[in-house]
Amino acid sequence: MVTGISNNTFLAAARGEHGSHTPVWFMRQAGRSLPEYKAIRGDGSILHAIKNPELSAQITLQPVTRYGVDAAVLYSDIVVPAHAIGFGIDVAPGTGPVATVPFRSVADLARVRPFEPEIDTPYVIETCRILAAELTVPLLAFAGAPFTVASYLIEGRPSRTYEHTKALMHTDERTWHELMDRLADHAIASIRSQLNAGGSAFQLFDSWAGAMSRVDYERFAKPHSAKVFSELAASHPHVPGIHFGIGCDHILESMYAAGPTVIGLDWRTRIQQARTRLGANTAVQGNLDPALVLAGWPVAQQGCDDVLADNAGHPAHIFNLGHGVQPNTDPGVLEQIVAYVHDKTRRS
Amino acid sequence: MVTGISNNTFLAAARGEHGSHTPVWFMRQAGRSLPEYKAIRGDGSILHAIKNPELSAQITLQPVTRYGVDAAVLYSDIVVPAHAIGFGIDVAPGTGPVATVPFRSVADLARVRPFEPEIDTPYVIETCRILAAELTVPLLAFAGAPFTVASYLIEGRPSRTYEHTKALMHTDERTWHELMDRLADHAIASIRSQLNAGGSAFQLFDSWAGAMSRVDYERFAKPHSAKVFSELAASHPHVPGIHFGIGCDHILESMYAAGPTVIGLDWRTRIQQARTRLGANTAVQGNLDPALVLAGWPVAQQGCDDVLADNAGHPAHIFNLGHGVQPNTDPGVLEQIVAYVHDKTRRS
Repeated sequence: MVTGISNNTFLAAARGEHGSHTPVWFMRQAGRSLPEYKAIRGDGSILHAIKNPELSAQITLQPVTRYGVDAAVLYSDIVVPAHAIGFGIDVAPGTGPVATVPFRSVADLARVRPFEPEIDTPYVIETCRILAAELTVPLLAFAGAPFTVASYLIEGRPSRTYEHTKALMHTDERTWHELMDRLADHAIASIRSQLNAGGSAFQLFDSWAGAMSRVDYERFAKPHSAKVFSELAASHPHVPGIHFGIGCDHILESMYAAGPTVIGLDWRTRIQQARTRLGANTAVQGNLDPALVLAGWPVAQQGCDDVLADNAGHPAHIFNLGHGVQPNTDPGVLEQIVAYVHDKTRRS
Repeated sequence: MVTGISNNTFLAAARGEHGSHTPVWFMRQAGRSLPEYKAIRGDGSILHAIKNPELSAQITLQPVTRYGVDAAVLYSDIVVPAHAIGFGIDVAPGTGPVATVPFRSVADLARVRPFEPEIDTPYVIETCRILAAELTVPLLAFAGAPFTVASYLIEGRPSRTYEHTKALMHTDERTWHELMDRLADHAIASIRSQLNAGGSAFQLFDSWAGAMSRVDYERFAKPHSAKVFSELAASHPHVPGIHFGIGCDHILESMYAAGPTVIGLDWRTRIQQARTRLGANTAVQGNLDPALVLAGWPVAQQGCDDVLADNAGHPAHIFNLGHGVQPNTDPGVLEQIVAYVHDKTRRS
């Protein structure tokens, strides 16, 4: 389906093969800090903007053009499926996902029907199709992992404590697992539809999984994320999957065991340490601290040197930040990072 | 100076000795969720309330009376020294520490003068004296660790990214270390004054240290926290010190190497795992997830069982939550936890 990809460095690294250079992309590279994004984005919720395929495709392409990154990531949001099925969740600018009536008990399962991408989000599929025809780098599909999406549905807004989420899993385990199973199906359907429309790889975002102990992660989250990876491996056997979370060093083995091709690392986990723990040839993505990007080029450059030294020339490395691009990031520094990593890792 | 302590279980556990039961206390046990606290607290900043020694002593005593905890922790805040020297920082109810003019460059060092507890916070000393005369359990002194206090001075408000803090350490290392050295002196002076007025142990809160990689923690924070522990060990050689942070599993060895007697654990680190990594007889504090307390007694009880099983009867265990008591916690559940842990660990 995808015929125009001339830059295969991302897919090579995900497979553990040497490409012409270490591939680079940035979580949240599309949108946020780019002036050309602000110029066309308009106001209001991202969930409104992404219903416009031409606009979303253009926003997705902007960082590829400006930065020369080696992968495009769809301009979208992890609550898109929940929003599309009418759960009642939106993304409030400056706040994040907000649910009018949070999920709190078994009765709320009635509000979590199956997600049918062709009917519920045809605009996302259309965006992918436009991009597939235009891109020369792989398009990354993505979805939120069941735990992280559940935490937004249950808390009703971004949380530091995840109190309602943890209360539900511990007091009504049956409802918890039913909800997680449905959200796993959402993630599978969502990623499949993006892959079928032109995506070449995918990332499952379990951003907040690190809020759990390993025991709780294994019991309440991992089986559902593992289902996402295994079902996608069955339908799309050669498509690499990335598993990413913040502050997940203490559950790293468990997240890797869920079945991704590539493990995403934030800056708290050293790449060498990850390969010691997970296997010497583990494909990793990361892991420059986004705060170092905010500190300006000399600091960011030193940070790039540290990440590349930590990886020690291993082919199975996708360069990225350890978290999403911060809104107040200087695009010029991101541009310098891409050029610098490309130059420093170029193979003849 | 302290003559009335009849319950020595806390100090015994900190020394690795068996007491009559496993001691229990809760971070933020004083204030927040207690109705008797709300009845006397009044409105406004905590920094105003703690200037009233009679009131602060009463608030400090309330959880000892209600819960039967084995230690009292001063009703105070980690920004008290910075506030008292006139840096311009207050605690906004519902938000946290807010600095009117954040610390951003070398010129701001002029606003960080030495902290002299006898002159700057005589009310804290007076509160300790009142408590020393009334308490039958040890009084815990505390202070913020240099990094966490610095993050409040530099960000100007609670942060998730610590972008300005990280920018300063990486772009002006000299100013960073000078600031940290002064804040270490603040912590030392503050804790010393509390110990001299009746405290029997202390806790250094480096709540946000986990935002750093281990390399950065070792370089930018550890030397200053190590100074706090070593200088207090020199002046108060038999007084146990606890070192605590959130999400610090990836820097646990480094935080322990800074020199505490007891390492505080949040729920992400298993007690057994901590003793495997730090030494079989390591004294630990923790580590029930406060979200489980919010989930009600049956869930909290199971959580207590898990923590006690994880500790496996080791004498060097101080039972606590893995983070502070949440404001919406049911005091009844905390009361049940204390009674349950006491009963389950009682030795004849």
